[in-house]
Amino acid sequence: MTREERFHQIAKELGYSFDGEIKVGGNYSPLVQHQDTIYISGQIPRVGNDVVIQGALGADVTLEAGQMAAKICVMRAIALLLKHLGSLDRVQKILRISVYVQSSASFTQQSEVSDGASEVLHSIFCDAGVHSRTSVGAFQLPKNASVEIDFVVAVD
Amino acid sequence: MTREERFHQIAKELGYSFDGEIKVGGNYSPLVQHQDTIYISGQIPRVGNDVVIQGALGADVTLEAGQMAAKICVMRAIALLLKHLGSLDRVQKILRISVYVQSSASFTQQSEVSDGASEVLHSIFCDAGVHSRTSVGAFQLPKNASVEIDFVVAVD
Amino acid sequence: MTREERFHQIAKELGYSFDGEIKVGGNYSPLVQHQDTIYISGQIPRVGNDVVIQGALGADVTLEAGQMAAKICVMRAIALLLKHLGSLDRVQKILRISVYVQSSASFTQQSEVSDGASEVLHSIFCDAGVHSRTSVGAFQLPKNASVEIDFVVAVD
Repeated sequence: MTREERFHQIAKELGYSFDGEIKVGGNYSPLVQHQDTIYISGQIPRVGNDVVIQGALGADVTLEAGQMAAKICVMRAIALLLKHLGSLDRVQKILRISVYVQSSASFTQQSEVSDGASEVLHSIFCDAGVHSRTSVGAFQLPKNASVEIDFVVAVD
Repeated sequence: MTREERFHQIAKELGYSFDGEIKVGGNYSPLVQHQDTIYISGQIPRVGNDVVIQGALGADVTLEAGQMAAKICVMRAIALLLKHLGSLDRVQKILRISVYVQSSASFTQQSEVSDGASEVLHSIFCDAGVHSRTSVGAFQLPKNASVEIDFVVAVD
Repeated sequence: MTREERFHQIAKELGYSFDGEIKVGGNYSPLVQHQDTIYISGQIPRVGNDVVIQGALGADVTLEAGQMAAKICVMRAIALLLKHLGSLDRVQKILRISVYVQSSASFTQQSEVSDGASEVLHSIFCDAGVHSRTSVGAFQLPKNASVEIDFVVAVD
């Protein structure tokens, strides 16, 4: 299977479509490229107009739901890459992801939430998807999202 | 108007001066350049010796004050760029800003706070100021600052 | 003294060994290189299997212990660089560190915690160790770590 086929397969498994327009603010952009490096803005688990997983891990949201939120953030980023590059074959390496997990005071499994993101990246990009990552417990996130992830990506 | 003229005009509108020396710690630096990429340290809304906007959004500080704090962080970063580069014309692209917003437990408008930062960047740099961004709700920030922003910038 | 000698001397002063294998997850990596830029994953104060400094600054952990935690994070990153590069002489510049400090609601000395990290980087790399940095108060961190730091490093 190609990367793009795996992307569409995972979208189907997750039960969401990532084909729609992704909203762009006026003064900033979801994706900026400089030479062969792409910076992707913080993605939250939004599908269409809805943030589908909201609240704090350890309080409102299970670990499994947090991992699902992380997967949706990654799928949104890959949809942006696909739209910008025309083909996922141009992705050379996922360099870094920063994973912010809305956490209760006693929730310390931020890395396990991030595993959801890492799994999708590796499934789609194989070795090129092996990235560095940072997992942090945030007090709040935009629109009460459970997870937010930003990306640095090398392309050819 | 040139970028520098717009910078000085916005400083005037905000009612603050960003001409003074910016304090530098001994073992780190407010700005590091590697080839054509500049990394700017996290900026807080400090003017002279005072952090002028302190406390948590959603509790101590209004959204408008938070946006003002974000604008001051950006103006400090631009003052650093001006001092380092000699001219703002050498800024090719604002690549990324990470916006940390000191937030109460129920405050979810971190993106709206960041809009203050994005507005100033776009006003001064136009298309070159259109950046990727991440907005996160922090539990605390240095010196009880309401907002902290760091930057990645491409220069020629 | 060479950089490597200073690294081993500081390890001795801290009372920890950083020679052991560093655990690597399957789908991500502690260190990713793209051209001459290295991204290092978020490091916590883990030695062997134990996170040796846990809990929140301002509540469970003193400023001095927080600085020690920051030093251990840096030493782990340098151990990764040494293993990957073969020699620390290949480090050209520490470009950025992001320091996440697990904080109580009223703890505002995140920058002072980061000073521990900056001191070690400067001790080992001198001018090449002068970096940009961001210090943020996190609500929680993986495995209840007191500090987490990630790195961007230029190498030749």
